[in-house]
Formats: sequence, C-alpha cells, structure tokens
Amino acid sequence: MKIVIDMLGGDNGLKASIPAVKNFLKKNLSDEVELFLIGDENILSKEFTSNNSLHIIHTTKVVPMDADPLTAIHDNETSLMIGIKTYLENSCDAIISAGSTGALLTAATLKIKRIKGISRPALISSLPTIINGKKFVCLDLGANASNTKEELNCFATMGSIYYKAMYKEENPRVYLLNIGTEEEKGNTLTKETFALLKENTHINFKGNIESRDVMNGDADVIVTDGFTGNMFLKTIEGTAKSMSNLIKKAFKRNLLSKIGYLFSKKGINEMRETMDYKNVGGAMLVGVNGVVIKAHGSSDEIAFLSAINCAYSFVKDEIVNKIKEELASEN
Amino acid sequence: MKIVIDMLGGDNGLKASIPAVKNFLKKNLSDEVELFLIGDENILSKEFTSNNSLHIIHTTKVVPMDADPLTAIHDNETSLMIGIKTYLENSCDAIISAGSTGALLTAATLKIKRIKGISRPALISSLPTIINGKKFVCLDLGANASNTKEELNCFATMGSIYYKAMYKEENPRVYLLNIGTEEEKGNTLTKETFALLKENTHINFKGNIESRDVMNGDADVIVTDGFTGNMFLKTIEGTAKSMSNLIKKAFKRNLLSKIGYLFSKKGINEMRETMDYKNVGGAMLVGVNGVVIKAHGSSDEIAFLSAINCAYSFVKDEIVNKIKEELASEN
Repeated sequence: MKIVIDMLGGDNGLKASIPAVKNFLKKNLSDEVELFLIGDENILSKEFTSNNSLHIIHTTKVVPMDADPLTAIHDNETSLMIGIKTYLENSCDAIISAGSTGALLTAATLKIKRIKGISRPALISSLPTIINGKKFVCLDLGANASNTKEELNCFATMGSIYYKAMYKEENPRVYLLNIGTEEEKGNTLTKETFALLKENTHINFKGNIESRDVMNGDADVIVTDGFTGNMFLKTIEGTAKSMSNLIKKAFKRNLLSKIGYLFSKKGINEMRETMDYKNVGGAMLVGVNGVVIKAHGSSDEIAFLSAINCAYSFVKDEIVNKIKEELASEN
Repeated sequence: MKIVIDMLGGDNGLKASIPAVKNFLKKNLSDEVELFLIGDENILSKEFTSNNSLHIIHTTKVVPMDADPLTAIHDNETSLMIGIKTYLENSCDAIISAGSTGALLTAATLKIKRIKGISRPALISSLPTIINGKKFVCLDLGANASNTKEELNCFATMGSIYYKAMYKEENPRVYLLNIGTEEEKGNTLTKETFALLKENTHINFKGNIESRDVMNGDADVIVTDGFTGNMFLKTIEGTAKSMSNLIKKAFKRNLLSKIGYLFSKKGINEMRETMDYKNVGGAMLVGVNGVVIKAHGSSDEIAFLSAINCAYSFVKDEIVNKIKEELASEN
C-alpha cells in the first residue's frame, strides 16, 4: 500500500504532520505501507530515515488557502501538486492533504480522475451522534456548490458502500437531509431526489430526516447537496464550539465552579471529545479513482494522524473497488 | 392595541397558553391591550373574566400539525381560522399561534395580505451568540422552501428594520449566510444575491458569513433563503440539545460528578439558558400587513409568554409601519 502525505498544506504545517506520521509509524506497518512525504527535506530528513518504505520528496512551496483552484493546479512546485505527481508516477493508493480544499478536489478530480459512471465526487466524513460511540456519515460536505438529483442519488450509493466498509454493517439506513420528514417537504431538489432514492436498489432508503434529529442515531448515511452539507457541517461545528466556550466560562465563574469542574471533569472531557471534530479525521473525496483524504485545515497532530489512519483503512477495505463494483452491477 | 391568541394550536395546548396569558396579564396593560383568546370557552371562562379588554371566542377544533395548508385554511372552525377572522373583523394588530406553521403562514399571507412591494413574507427570529446577551436575527427561517435573489434582497431590508426596532441600534451589520466568506463563494443564488446586497442602500451590508462564525457576535442580521435558514436553525437546535444531553450525562456519571454539578450548576444553567430556544420567543412573519407571530410548536408556558411579549413590543415599536415607510422611500 502506497500513501502520499502532503506534509505542508495545513495551518499547522510540519508541526502537526511530523508527529502524526511518527505516531503512525509506531504501528510498524513498514512491510505493508510505503509512505511518500512531501515537504522540506532539510527538516524531514532529520526526523525520518529514508528507506524502501519511506521517501522524502522536497518542496517548501504551499498552495495558498485562498488560491483559485484552477490556477493553483498549474503550479507544479507546490506540495499538493508534487504530491499528486508522486501519486500518479508511483501508482499510489492514497493521498492526504490538509491544504486548500478547492485545489485538492480539483487536482484529484482532474489528475487522479473520476470512477467511471460518476459525474461528481463528493466529500464524506463520519460525524458523532449522542448514542455511545455511534457515528453517521454525511455527504456531500462541500465538494460541490450545487448538485443535481442524479448526483445526489449517486452520493447515496457511494455513502452506503462507504458506511458498510467503515462500520461493517450490512444494510445501512440512508436518509435524505431535508426541512421536514414527509415526502412532499422541501425544495424542488429534495422532492425530486426523494423520488429517485425510493427507486435506488443499491440502498436501504428510509426517507427524509431533519437536521435537528441527525444526532439521535437513527441514520447511518445522510445525503445532501454540497452547499447544504457544508452549511450543516459548519453549523454543527460552530454550535459545538460555542457551547464548549460557554461551558468553559461556566466553570471559570468562581472558586466553587472551579471545584465543580475538578469533580466532573472526566465526564465533561468525554463529552467534549465526542463533539470534537479532531477525532473524526479527514473527509474522503469519494467518486475519484483512489483514496483522497482532505484533513481539516486547522488539523493538529491528532487530527492529522486520524486522517492518515482513515486513508490506511480505506485502502485496506478497498472502498474504491467496492464502489466500482457496485456501480458496474448497475449496468 | 388588539392581540389575538390562538390558545389551542401548540403541542401543549391550553397547558402552555393559559399560564402564559395569565403571566402576561400581570403586566396590567388592560387599558392599553385588548386580548382575543380563541379556545374552549368552558375551560377559558373559568380561568379568565371576559370584559372590555379580554374576549373569549369559543372553539375546540385545531388544525392538525400535518395538515395541507391550502386545505386547512378552508376549515373555518379551527382556532387558527377563527383567530384570523377575529383579527380581520376587529382590525387587530397582532396574532399569535403555536399551531401548524404552514397553515398560519398561508392564512396570514392570503387573509391579512402582504405589504405592498413584498412578494414573499419571511420568518425572522433572534438567536443567541456567545457574547453576553448579544443576539442576532436571521431570516428566512423557513416560511419559503426556496427564494429568488430579489426576495433575499428584500429580506435584508426587512431584517435590518426589524433589528433596528428590536435592539435600538442604528446601523445593523447585515451578512449573507454562505459556505465561504469571499464574494465569489457559494451557489448561483448566493453569488447573485451578494451583487444585489452590495447595491442595497437601505442596509449596511458587510459580506458573506459562514455558519460556524454566526455566534461570534459580528453579525446583527443574517439573510438566507427559507430552505437553508430552516436547516441552519434546526441544526443549531439539534446540536445544542445533543450537547445539553451529553452534559447531563457527564454530571450523572458518578457521585463525584454529581457533587461537581452542585458546585457549578449556576454557571451551567446560565449556559443552558443562553442556548435554550424557549427564551427566544416566537418567530415573526415579516412582510405581511400585521404582526403575525409563530410560537414554537412545542412551546411551554415560558416560550408562549415570550411570544406574546414579542407581539406586544412589535406592535408598540410599529415594525410593520416602519417596513412600509422604508419600502415606500424606495419608489
């Protein structure tokens, strides 16, 4: 298994990626995994020893976060574009970057190419519920600014395969994210998509779900367009962060509340961990012909490690092949 | 000032509305406010004394929550439709209902009518930030399943007037809810709306805002289409509720954490209150020719009282006239 890692892309750069890779290497998978680290050789060669299962490819240039994706992919010296080139030249299985989402998605779609039969890739990731350990997956989280009903129908199939591989569950419950539960609720897109999903034989479609109910644990796969999915994800993120700040403030109120925190911190920290997106790892770009992982731009070492672990298990679980087979069975 | 109250519509029916009205009456506004209570006369007449400033109008029939709005408005015996009739016959100023949103919006739009120049009314409400006491308002929260850029531009003007009246602030900062902050981000609707908002001389337009940043307190008015706004609102609601549940669980973990709660409960309860939508009151349907308040379907007496208080201050602040004047100044 060959994995390319853009060590520079994220807000925290090498500070996050170096310890993450070191932790990943503790798994001792060197006979199974070959890593290609893209970044500053002067620094990386002091931290890692190049050998048959670890290669360092030098660059110090990063795609700016606000770069126009179509411009960015023409600069061949950035860590992202060197990563993509390395991926293609070495027939790699996965690539991970915490850099510009738009540039990664555009480069991956144009260079690694889409799976036959898929017109638009989508970003998918696991999100927490309030049921112990239970997660759901949601797509598209923002690879697209808008989608058609046919694209959403395809997302449902891919999401279902992803969930099966990730959580070893045979018949994941697929829901359409909407502003009401009845079939006739929503805008034109959701109404027309509902009709297609009902007829989709690859999935176990259970109907519409409202965003306020997604954390109750009923849904395994949630399908939505890229605009709504991105809005949804960022609203959860913002609300969870705001509440965490309010909790912190509540405990800092006075001496009594500080003592209260000491007594209850174990549970409180568990709660924070449940809602912390760092533990979720990267989002995968499903629909392209390889495992492409977008780590959160502000990834710290834990988040970055979790993105590498995601890439590893997606390759091991052969998600890309499974999607290809399922789509081929359609024709 | 004349206010009509649909006492039956909400999930909690009279259990919420009776104590709410009683609490409102403690304000001793009987020389200023005339109330029309729509509901079961047998029960209401035991709780309230009819007089010049309080009328009881009998019905026991409620619009079912899943009713088709266009069918529902043809049943003249429901508390909602008797309420609308009472409103029109007595030239009232405000009507409040916790019943079916669709039926209330449709009835209000068709019978109370829109303000001249407004093609679509919108639901607006205040939402909490994490800055002490600071709130922002957002519209449309779900009166429409989809909107045009012209409608969003009109929402921005109405939202700004609403904010000025509600929070006595001269130049509220208006933002467009989007999936990125740059002008060129988003879908066709947000891009085209951005161009219109830049030219709107009635508002202080500050650009795009992402949903994860709305609670930081920078925005006063947030504009979005009804589908996205409803999704946004319900995502905040669901995330806040899920986190509250997790906090409860964290404190119930063991004896130590229970003691911890005793020490810190004042701060924790303050936090919960900040995020509790019961204190927000009802959403107003702006754009119709009167004060129409939709209380949350699951309103308890506190939420219902807060909706009545909203109606009272919106009439007092002459919001409807202010919107009319501002729109007239355009022509």
